[in-house]
Amino acid sequence: MKLSFIGLGRMGAGMAGSLLRAGFELTVYNRSQPALEALVGRGAHAAANVAAACDADVLISMLADDAAAEAVVLGEGGVLEHLPRDAIHLSMSTLSVALSKRLATAHASAGQRYVAAPVFGRPDAAAAAKLFIVAAGDSSAIAACQPLFDAMGQRTFPLGTEPSQANLVKLSGNFLLAAAIEALGEAIALVGKAGVDPEAFVDVLASSIFPAPAYRNYGLAIAQGKFEPAGFTAPLGFKDIRFVLQAAEALEVPLPLAGLLRDRFLRLLAGGGERLDWAAIGGLAGEDAGRGQT
Amino acid sequence: MKLSFIGLGRMGAGMAGSLLRAGFELTVYNRSQPALEALVGRGAHAAANVAAACDADVLISMLADDAAAEAVVLGEGGVLEHLPRDAIHLSMSTLSVALSKRLATAHASAGQRYVAAPVFGRPDAAAAAKLFIVAAGDSSAIAACQPLFDAMGQRTFPLGTEPSQANLVKLSGNFLLAAAIEALGEAIALVGKAGVDPEAFVDVLASSIFPAPAYRNYGLAIAQGKFEPAGFTAPLGFKDIRFVLQAAEALEVPLPLAGLLRDRFLRLLAGGGERLDWAAIGGLAGEDAGRGQT
Amino acid sequence: MKLSFIGLGRMGAGMAGSLLRAGFELTVYNRSQPALEALVGRGAHAAANVAAACDADVLISMLADDAAAEAVVLGEGGVLEHLPRDAIHLSMSTLSVALSKRLATAHASAGQRYVAAPVFGRPDAAAAAKLFIVAAGDSSAIAACQPLFDAMGQRTFPLGTEPSQANLVKLSGNFLLAAAIEALGEAIALVGKAGVDPEAFVDVLASSIFPAPAYRNYGLAIAQGKFEPAGFTAPLGFKDIRFVLQAAEALEVPLPLAGLLRDRFLRLLAGGGERLDWAAIGGLAGEDAGRGQT
Amino acid sequence: MKLSFIGLGRMGAGMAGSLLRAGFELTVYNRSQPALEALVGRGAHAAANVAAACDADVLISMLADDAAAEAVVLGEGGVLEHLPRDAIHLSMSTLSVALSKRLATAHASAGQRYVAAPVFGRPDAAAAAKLFIVAAGDSSAIAACQPLFDAMGQRTFPLGTEPSQANLVKLSGNFLLAAAIEALGEAIALVGKAGVDPEAFVDVLASSIFPAPAYRNYGLAIAQGKFEPAGFTAPLGFKDIRFVLQAAEALEVPLPLAGLLRDRFLRLLAGGGERLDWAAIGGLAGEDAGRGQT
Repeated sequence: MKLSFIGLGRMGAGMAGSLLRAGFELTVYNRSQPALEALVGRGAHAAANVAAACDADVLISMLADDAAAEAVVLGEGGVLEHLPRDAIHLSMSTLSVALSKRLATAHASAGQRYVAAPVFGRPDAAAAAKLFIVAAGDSSAIAACQPLFDAMGQRTFPLGTEPSQANLVKLSGNFLLAAAIEALGEAIALVGKAGVDPEAFVDVLASSIFPAPAYRNYGLAIAQGKFEPAGFTAPLGFKDIRFVLQAAEALEVPLPLAGLLRDRFLRLLAGGGERLDWAAIGGLAGEDAGRGQT
Repeated sequence: MKLSFIGLGRMGAGMAGSLLRAGFELTVYNRSQPALEALVGRGAHAAANVAAACDADVLISMLADDAAAEAVVLGEGGVLEHLPRDAIHLSMSTLSVALSKRLATAHASAGQRYVAAPVFGRPDAAAAAKLFIVAAGDSSAIAACQPLFDAMGQRTFPLGTEPSQANLVKLSGNFLLAAAIEALGEAIALVGKAGVDPEAFVDVLASSIFPAPAYRNYGLAIAQGKFEPAGFTAPLGFKDIRFVLQAAEALEVPLPLAGLLRDRFLRLLAGGGERLDWAAIGGLAGEDAGRGQT
Repeated sequence: MKLSFIGLGRMGAGMAGSLLRAGFELTVYNRSQPALEALVGRGAHAAANVAAACDADVLISMLADDAAAEAVVLGEGGVLEHLPRDAIHLSMSTLSVALSKRLATAHASAGQRYVAAPVFGRPDAAAAAKLFIVAAGDSSAIAACQPLFDAMGQRTFPLGTEPSQANLVKLSGNFLLAAAIEALGEAIALVGKAGVDPEAFVDVLASSIFPAPAYRNYGLAIAQGKFEPAGFTAPLGFKDIRFVLQAAEALEVPLPLAGLLRDRFLRLLAGGGERLDWAAIGGLAGEDAGRGQT
Repeated sequence: MKLSFIGLGRMGAGMAGSLLRAGFELTVYNRSQPALEALVGRGAHAAANVAAACDADVLISMLADDAAAEAVVLGEGGVLEHLPRDAIHLSMSTLSVALSKRLATAHASAGQRYVAAPVFGRPDAAAAAKLFIVAAGDSSAIAACQPLFDAMGQRTFPLGTEPSQANLVKLSGNFLLAAAIEALGEAIALVGKAGVDPEAFVDVLASSIFPAPAYRNYGLAIAQGKFEPAGFTAPLGFKDIRFVLQAAEALEVPLPLAGLLRDRFLRLLAGGGERLDWAAIGGLAGEDAGRGQT
């Protein structure tokens, strides 16, 4: 299997490393050089451009956002032009449902196969091959990708035959995380104003009814008001909530909690919070409660 | 230590049983006989009324709601009248902050000690001594209760010296659970309308970013639209959200997500859902999306 | 007809003055002297206390809030004790539905008649006999009060036979005003950030689709950020929204917009806004949009 | 002045008629014939296509939506291609801010002048020259259009030099109307469940604090549950709320009430309400309160 990987950011670098570690021969491409060289140092072949990386049976892409994916796939000299017929584009980026549908249509027209398989997990999970992978697309194509999934993740969830379903599930997961942040923010504002130690409160929750790292980590960030450095920035979080709302609009699904989150992000950004972690929306309830006022 | 226990509902019976199993000598009282007799059959002494149960160093109460607790403690022939000076009333019920403050004041006036120690966990956890216990009150009184906590729970979180803080933490925990239900309901409505299998979606979440039984169990209930029999009824859930909002009003803390939950419960109840599990609020997003319409 | 009037605040003084101007003989009572003396100077008789004022066929009360009305009517030496059988208590205060129901029951038990007739209009409208009066109660009692309504208001709306219905309508009117304030606040934040002159925007609205003084006056207050001196303070506005939500809870009616307003008031008050006009909740959308930030 | 008018729908036909009545010589174009012929019967000249209508000093357009305006102005054979340099495109349609900005840029590049002047008023107001006109653009261009505004409306509000500001003001006006509908819907659900006659309630409001036809008309529609035939359909109302939210997103302005309206429209549409009047969102609060359930 000829295998290529485009997009060596913090996530992609870890994922490509996992593939090398698992013994796959891998051609890599990245816009900036240092990340590329690091992988080459670990045994990968460098592709000079996207077109060169397309000489593959499976091309994996892990890109920052819709704009990057659109440019790499649909742009001039892009994947759509150069990927062979019957080859698979395995898109693991967090993309909008709308773009994923466009990619599905475009690849089908070009006789290429397309699997969407976004992931849950942070860069450390990517590096440790501990990602959770949500995959949708043609089932034979997913089967062909399974060894790759096994090399990059701790578990794969096949979800359906329409690739954009995987993107929607990934976005919905992020919506649920943001909802938990908001709920934590409100509860912490409340118990904090009643004199309860917020960190002790978070420990209660994360040790009892919510034994999930997200509750502990985001809860502590809110309790401490510590939103820098950002693990996942507010503009990225906002982007995903917007994608959820766009998909919901297309499907005619009212989502009041997602609407609340949208307003939280807009307020955070209007107030200059673009460099903060997205958990900073959890600090707004405390502001509204007058925290820090004299 | 002379120990009594008032309130042998599904939770209380399990907790009293744990105390017996741990070797405590225990006097019990319950308004209805069968539950009382079951405990007596396991070695407890029966008290004829609340007053008789008050002949104790520590009196534990586990009652259904504010009204029951108010009657048992503040009513004629109640705990306040009959508990000896310096004895401890260990209140483990889920009470409002307002009532807990009244109890604190009343017990202090009577020279009695008062600890609030509500619990997280369902009846099966109560029976298995696996509760999580959140305790607040005078630290020496909490220390005196520690062996009891150890017999009934898997972990105790001491949270402060003002008893009502423990009640607020318990209520806030229930708010967080209801928030998770709402978030799950919205996400399931969305992915379901896009053709994703809702149960598979819940499995993704509960296996990856939300490894908490609450996410799996409530998620599956919503995915299956199965809200009977109720583990915790909608009116009880609504009561706790109302208590959260009342506490927040007294403290001047805006809680938009709690407000959304309030409206969800009112709508559920106005539509005849009083016998359903509180997770049924998670089905309303699906209704709004037109699920089941032709 | 022997007529008394209790409560000579800014509203009550104007209303009592309207009755005198219309030729009614009037006994007045007020807790503080200066307002009482002003009315006496215009021909009213002074009552030494509430009990003395109760020597009447119709006793009108116009009190600040539930607490005042409860004390005057249900307290020792109050209206309930001293008003003759078959006499009418004409309550024109803005009271909660719950208190109005209690008063109805109490008066009925005492063989007294009770009409609730709250008003729309500011002090200047009270002084000019231009109030709008919403009346509910026994129809013969309302008929007996009609000459009084004619003397105090420009129009009376009889609304039903249960007095608390009039209170609910009055509270709902205030809810609608607060909703208009919120809507204006959001729209002004939006057009203002786009560079439109907010006052010109308000003029468009109030001259075209919303030819109502409330839109112009509240709109200009928000456009100018001018919330002092208060015509109607934030705590009073909040009280009415709380009464709306309480009535809605008792009736099981979800009101998401009222919930949003509740949070706006809580935030305003938590931030120290208790002396501001209630229109100040309309300034919060602008804050969220980052107005005034650098 | 050579004057043309494109778009003879219910609004445009009335506006063009007003211009004829005021003595303007007018060339008209419409996609469908009957409306065109009606105007020709009243003295207008017919243009065979958009290009022919562009032989003008001022070209007025009054089109249904963004798509129509985009096609007519930016499409092949459209206004941009054929309008002479220095001629004015007077766009009176309700367009998005985003499209209005694109038109401004395109016209500027082509050396044409562009004024946005959307209107408030229904078809009957258009026919009676009673519209309210909100105009933005270059001040000399607005001055040149003033005689036209005078012929079509009862009042013109010049709002700024950037055309899209007028579009934003128009959209914000519609947002305020939808907000009033929601508030009315909630209040009517509440008082109705308390047994108050909803129509009497609406009469109180519209006769006292809200003397605006919108409150009376939408209030009565909600009180009667009568949403057909539609004066302004739900999908059109939803479109405008979406445009408001898009503009707010671009400007980073959180709008919680607009978010609530969005969800109301989505729910209405998901339930099959696309042919109803937009006031039908005001019926949803009553549904949530269980109206009509047994």
